[in-house]
Amino acid sequence: METTSKVNRRWRLAARPVGLIKESDFALREEQVPTPKEGQVLIRNLYLSLDPTMRSWVSDVPTYFPPVPIGEVMWGTTIGVVEHSRNDQFREGTTVTGFLGWQDYALSNGEGLQALPHNAAIPLIAYFGLFGLVGITAYFGLLDIGRPQTGETLVVTAAAGAVGSLVGQIGKIKGCRVVGIAGSDEKCCWITDELGFDAAINYRTKHVLERLKQACPHGIDVHYENVGGRILDAALALINLRARIVLCGMISLYNNTRPEAGLYFLGSLIVKRARMEGFLVLDYLDRTQEALDDLMKWHAEGKLRYRVDVVEGLEQAPRAINKLFDGTNMGKLIVKV
Amino acid sequence: METTSKVNRRWRLAARPVGLIKESDFALREEQVPTPKEGQVLIRNLYLSLDPTMRSWVSDVPTYFPPVPIGEVMWGTTIGVVEHSRNDQFREGTTVTGFLGWQDYALSNGEGLQALPHNAAIPLIAYFGLFGLVGITAYFGLLDIGRPQTGETLVVTAAAGAVGSLVGQIGKIKGCRVVGIAGSDEKCCWITDELGFDAAINYRTKHVLERLKQACPHGIDVHYENVGGRILDAALALINLRARIVLCGMISLYNNTRPEAGLYFLGSLIVKRARMEGFLVLDYLDRTQEALDDLMKWHAEGKLRYRVDVVEGLEQAPRAINKLFDGTNMGKLIVKV
Repeated sequence: METTSKVNRRWRLAARPVGLIKESDFALREEQVPTPKEGQVLIRNLYLSLDPTMRSWVSDVPTYFPPVPIGEVMWGTTIGVVEHSRNDQFREGTTVTGFLGWQDYALSNGEGLQALPHNAAIPLIAYFGLFGLVGITAYFGLLDIGRPQTGETLVVTAAAGAVGSLVGQIGKIKGCRVVGIAGSDEKCCWITDELGFDAAINYRTKHVLERLKQACPHGIDVHYENVGGRILDAALALINLRARIVLCGMISLYNNTRPEAGLYFLGSLIVKRARMEGFLVLDYLDRTQEALDDLMKWHAEGKLRYRVDVVEGLEQAPRAINKLFDGTNMGKLIVKV
Repeated sequence: METTSKVNRRWRLAARPVGLIKESDFALREEQVPTPKEGQVLIRNLYLSLDPTMRSWVSDVPTYFPPVPIGEVMWGTTIGVVEHSRNDQFREGTTVTGFLGWQDYALSNGEGLQALPHNAAIPLIAYFGLFGLVGITAYFGLLDIGRPQTGETLVVTAAAGAVGSLVGQIGKIKGCRVVGIAGSDEKCCWITDELGFDAAINYRTKHVLERLKQACPHGIDVHYENVGGRILDAALALINLRARIVLCGMISLYNNTRPEAGLYFLGSLIVKRARMEGFLVLDYLDRTQEALDDLMKWHAEGKLRYRVDVVEGLEQAPRAINKLFDGTNMGKLIVKV
């Protein structure tokens, strides 16, 4: 660890992005590595999780968090190692995860910081790809809000993404017919051939509604939405009586500067007495263990796979995050700091 | 009754309307008054209920009913009197209500036909304006789907309409702050001054979102939607955590030939973990008495008022139905046959 550069590179928010994030919306500063005070620990970040919801944190539209202030180090969840500890709860060398930001080094007073278990069989990145927020999001969003029943048809959007790929596999475990919508033929192959989805649709091809109809001959009972816009509308056109639409995200809209074309089939919610419900994983953090128990079991049984997309270098973070929106990302997007 | 013309005027669907209904979409035929067979009754219609959902019945988009076939007598609920009976359950002279269509006379085998109670204190039109489907719709939509709590803020659209005006009053009975959105200053005065709404907004004025924000200083907990489109979007912008949006109708969209501008604030459902749920009164018909008991009690206590808008003459029906969509209707729209 002594060979590590003792400069702390920190990405600070420089401007509120309009549309897609530009590198100039952030400023990379080289600052001094801080020294922990009594009760604090200094963590060296190893991995930074990049998530679609980050786009909302930097806009000035109020969300579940206040916006990241201009000038502040960009927020983000990381996995790191305790380099210097003045807090009895975290020994030096401990691997931890926390909300530690886009930077090489972070100070923490231990609040919200969590030591990761020692388990040689589980690589660190699995705590981002499966046994972290994405897994908990997929688990509770599908099971608690979507409530799929055996034999029902489940449609998942951004199905080759970190959350979507897990949602579809959990749907299979629960006995659903699972149809994924993704942005390339390669992604479609991955989710059907390797993850066991029953069908996949590349939304960049023509006649998406027609193809979705063919893939869902008995209509849609549960729709897990990560994208929004046109794709959501196609699903609305095909929902069954008492369908449940889980709104987890709307990545197609986060970079919009004006409203989309409308949801032509929103009235289906009335005709089909259906429900569209938004949720945030933050509301389920106290039930994390419940999800992890099942996720670990299913993973051990070979029923649940994940994939990570690792970008090398903290300096790549602002460019890399757009992979979540331009369709070039598969699985969980992570920056190796 | 012998003086009644013995011609049966019947409005038959002539074409699928595009946009607003045109008179030429229907054809008024003069046909023979039919003679009931064994088990049937002949009903002379007195009143015909005109409802926004009728617009969906004549389109070719599938809804909860198959479309009215071209050439068929237009469907509708009426109140009438039994003129000739060959069915023991309905004596001649009995006042009944049923799904008897846009015509002077209808035959029925008694299925779905309901005798109205003799009660001199209740005028016949009250069975359309309050103690009928509109009352049951307002009651279960608000209480079962919206689940308002004392002290919460309830917003109702088409608030001077048949359903909306009842929803707001039931909201007041349940202890909510009630804000109505309607299409004229006259309507706004009616719902605040006579029906006791806390505030009303004329959506035809400017800055609807700003004014809705002022009228809902603590945000929106329950939104009862009859209109859809821009107004729904304004409400989405102001919903509170765990808000419930009741989708009862979307009259602003029924005559659209292309999608509306999108719901810019649909993402609020995620941020606020809110729920948007469609419902149809048809699912509650077996609980009708539960609603009627409360509606009659509240009406007797002077807490629940209704208004009817009576158009004279069956020949006016196709023109009159557009009053539901052009904003000129207040209260329950009824044709006096």
